[in-house]
Amino acid sequence: MDITQFVEGSIGQWRSQRSAHHMVFAHFEAVRSEIDIVALTPDNLAVIELCQSYDIDPSQAVAPFHMSWEGESDWDEKEVLKGSTVLVPIPDPNIPNKGLLLRDRGYAETMPAAAHYHITEDGVFVLITEYDRAAAEERIWFVNPNLRFRVATIKTSDGTGVVTASFSSELRNMSKA
Amino acid sequence: MDITQFVEGSIGQWRSQRSAHHMVFAHFEAVRSEIDIVALTPDNLAVIELCQSYDIDPSQAVAPFHMSWEGESDWDEKEVLKGSTVLVPIPDPNIPNKGLLLRDRGYAETMPAAAHYHITEDGVFVLITEYDRAAAEERIWFVNPNLRFRVATIKTSDGTGVVTASFSSELRNMSKA
Repeated sequence: MDITQFVEGSIGQWRSQRSAHHMVFAHFEAVRSEIDIVALTPDNLAVIELCQSYDIDPSQAVAPFHMSWEGESDWDEKEVLKGSTVLVPIPDPNIPNKGLLLRDRGYAETMPAAAHYHITEDGVFVLITEYDRAAAEERIWFVNPNLRFRVATIKTSDGTGVVTASFSSELRNMSKA
Repeated sequence: MDITQFVEGSIGQWRSQRSAHHMVFAHFEAVRSEIDIVALTPDNLAVIELCQSYDIDPSQAVAPFHMSWEGESDWDEKEVLKGSTVLVPIPDPNIPNKGLLLRDRGYAETMPAAAHYHITEDGVFVLITEYDRAAAEERIWFVNPNLRFRVATIKTSDGTGVVTASFSSELRNMSKA
């Protein structure tokens, strides 16, 4: 599995169930959402501008995509969780299945955030993002072509403690395929 | 990471949060439990008898252990989830980090169940159990020495559909270490 195959397999609309475990208080949170992943062409203006904002030559971009989501949490049913982002993989030219993933904004911060990815021999896409006050690790893999799992951890930036662990099961929405 | 290291790292008492996603109805279930994992010696009578029930020479057993759990689900707060089992790894003499895991009973059935395990390069312990009407896959890994994650899927035995996906975060109980 390389980054192009991983992104191609992810294109589509997904129905997500996410469970977050807030470790300190052993609290559960349940989130239902719809996730839409759309391929972008390398000459898309948003892709070019994102590369330029990181001083990266846009010709290095591989399989860029747009992701949007909308959902609700059982913690606050009035709040709609909604957002979208452009994501641009920049493979490392020297190391297979390793590189940067540019985003126009992070999940936990509002500043642009570059994350480091690698894909394990076992086909797991691992994404590590360092923020000012925290670090996030995501592990995403396909159980079958229509089911993705995603395990995310948020750690304090000194790496000592895991604050939140979450698990998403993402089922391809066949009715809208 | 080999099977002995994996079992050694697992010995202790754990506070588990488990979220199950019942895929068809997009339903969430939350389970809190305590898990106790205790090392057994190879000459333990339960270990010897379990090997014999599978016609396996007990001298092939490596790092046997006893696991017990007690918890409750938010689906039925009156029901106490409680059980215990003896587990005996039997490494494959020819293939590193691969083998059988004998149990005196399965999670989903009451008959004895032998599962196949392997440990990935990435340090993930993968366990596959075939039952009469279903197959279970568990992936267990350490985030740090005091935090284990466990992702389990239950599939129909023909392998087509994932019925339930669950995620457990297991935090070492320091107060009882």
